Amino acid sequence: MTLPQCEFAKGHGTENDFVIVQDFDAARPWTPQEVAAVCDRRAGIGGDGLLRVVRAGALVEAGELAELAEGIDPGDWFMDYRNADGSVAEMCGNGTRVFAHWVYSRGLVDAPEFVVGTRAGAKRVVVSEADERQAQVTVEMGPAEVLGVSSATMGQRTFAGLGVDVGNPHLAAVIPGLDAQALQEWQLCAPEWDKQFFPQGVNVEVVTPLVDGQVHMRVYERGVGETRSCGTGTVAAATAALADAAASHPELAASPMGTVTVHVPGGTVEVDVYEGGTRLSGPSRIIATGVLL
Amino acid sequence: MTLPQCEFAKGHGTENDFVIVQDFDAARPWTPQEVAAVCDRRAGIGGDGLLRVVRAGALVEAGELAELAEGIDPGDWFMDYRNADGSVAEMCGNGTRVFAHWVYSRGLVDAPEFVVGTRAGAKRVVVSEADERQAQVTVEMGPAEVLGVSSATMGQRTFAGLGVDVGNPHLAAVIPGLDAQALQEWQLCAPEWDKQFFPQGVNVEVVTPLVDGQVHMRVYERGVGETRSCGTGTVAAATAALADAAASHPELAASPMGTVTVHVPGGTVEVDVYEGGTRLSGPSRIIATGVLL
Repeated sequence: MTLPQCEFAKGHGTENDFVIVQDFDAARPWTPQEVAAVCDRRAGIGGDGLLRVVRAGALVEAGELAELAEGIDPGDWFMDYRNADGSVAEMCGNGTRVFAHWVYSRGLVDAPEFVVGTRAGAKRVVVSEADERQAQVTVEMGPAEVLGVSSATMGQRTFAGLGVDVGNPHLAAVIPGLDAQALQEWQLCAPEWDKQFFPQGVNVEVVTPLVDGQVHMRVYERGVGETRSCGTGTVAAATAALADAAASHPELAASPMGTVTVHVPGGTVEVDVYEGGTRLSGPSRIIATGVLL
Repeated sequence: MTLPQCEFAKGHGTENDFVIVQDFDAARPWTPQEVAAVCDRRAGIGGDGLLRVVRAGALVEAGELAELAEGIDPGDWFMDYRNADGSVAEMCGNGTRVFAHWVYSRGLVDAPEFVVGTRAGAKRVVVSEADERQAQVTVEMGPAEVLGVSSATMGQRTFAGLGVDVGNPHLAAVIPGLDAQALQEWQLCAPEWDKQFFPQGVNVEVVTPLVDGQVHMRVYERGVGETRSCGTGTVAAATAALADAAASHPELAASPMGTVTVHVPGGTVEVDVYEGGTRLSGPSRIIATGVLL
């Protein structure tokens, strides 16, 4: 398969990794085949997805986007996110953090707080401690809607969890008595779930109970398998862990809000759950820049 | 993990992929941790291995190699091959092809036929149809020693194969009646093998019978799992296919020699089995150059 001959960067947010390509004027549409070729881990650079950096207005002018959602200006940077298989995705929390780091550290915005356009709407980001290689980035993830209790089965184990919609469906299962060591040894495998509760499938997080504001989690992503990190999954896990802690301690607020440090196999992020929204903060790392041949 | 900040290229031979780094004067020893960080597919560039390009004499002067094997001059280019986990490997057939392509297309040798130094000795290569992006490369792989017949079990299936030593141990199983389509559907999984026959473990190739000089194969590599290509595995498969065809057709030479086109999941190579040696020919592709940050 032929690769487009262009510049690229590779980066990751807690080891959710991305190929970054620039196309400010939307002059070069990327075909699904080209995206898949670049994201192929052996014949290409490899990545969980591709981040095309483009001006929001240019994408509309090129006819690739019908209109700009509320809060996105034509001059804003737009994250045109593609899955590794070439399909279009609306949003990716860790991708947005790496995208914002790249845009900021390359001097393409004036201030560390700005809007990133996505197909899921305007996402406000704040970049700090940034250089060309690394940064801390916070992204507004929008509300996490609690859907109620459901259950899943993995191998021999059946467990209950909280259904949480973070733009995509999650079952975040806080397992009583589970600690980091036992979680690491947990046989994570393809889950069976309630097809009526999650008709579109579900991402499953296995989560330790909240201790000192921290949880550990592992995630089995819908259609992918286990990954080292999942931005929306950490938000679902934090929401479930806060609800679980509130249920055990009725003296806590009935509406589960707060800040949770979430340890995933690929690193550590912080999730704020507040009235009407959630916020994801964590590291971004740009590991290489180069040219595709 | 910190990545060394240096230039790199990424290339593959039939989708056996490598990170190429240059260190002509052996001025920068690479630690296993650094190699593993660069070869990590999410936190690094990703590759089946790392090819450090260094002058053979410099490696000896730096104390990294005891002495030059017969046929390697101090001025020859040496492929210091590392596995993705950081361990040192003696030889890699597909890696040698990509290494030779890189060295030749970057103008580091005068002629398309030259010697590549490896820990398994001098390997003569011929590069043709080369530009910066792609080339055809032939590498002398040395003799393939037939060890005799053994068998293996994969899931429900037990099958016989030919034990072949190509510097590393293989069981190449030509399955009567198997065609390319059926091979693609074959459930390749971790094999059970004869521990007395292969005390060091074994790479298992499942191979279609020789038809019009061609075979299809899939490989399950020792300690790795299924891969898209394996240079020594294609040599073992060709050797077994020639022996199988000779057994079915006694009018053919008793000593199985000839040229076999071997289709692997990652592409196609050609293997010559001749008196006292074997030769592997196939494509090399450099897909990117860049800088690690």
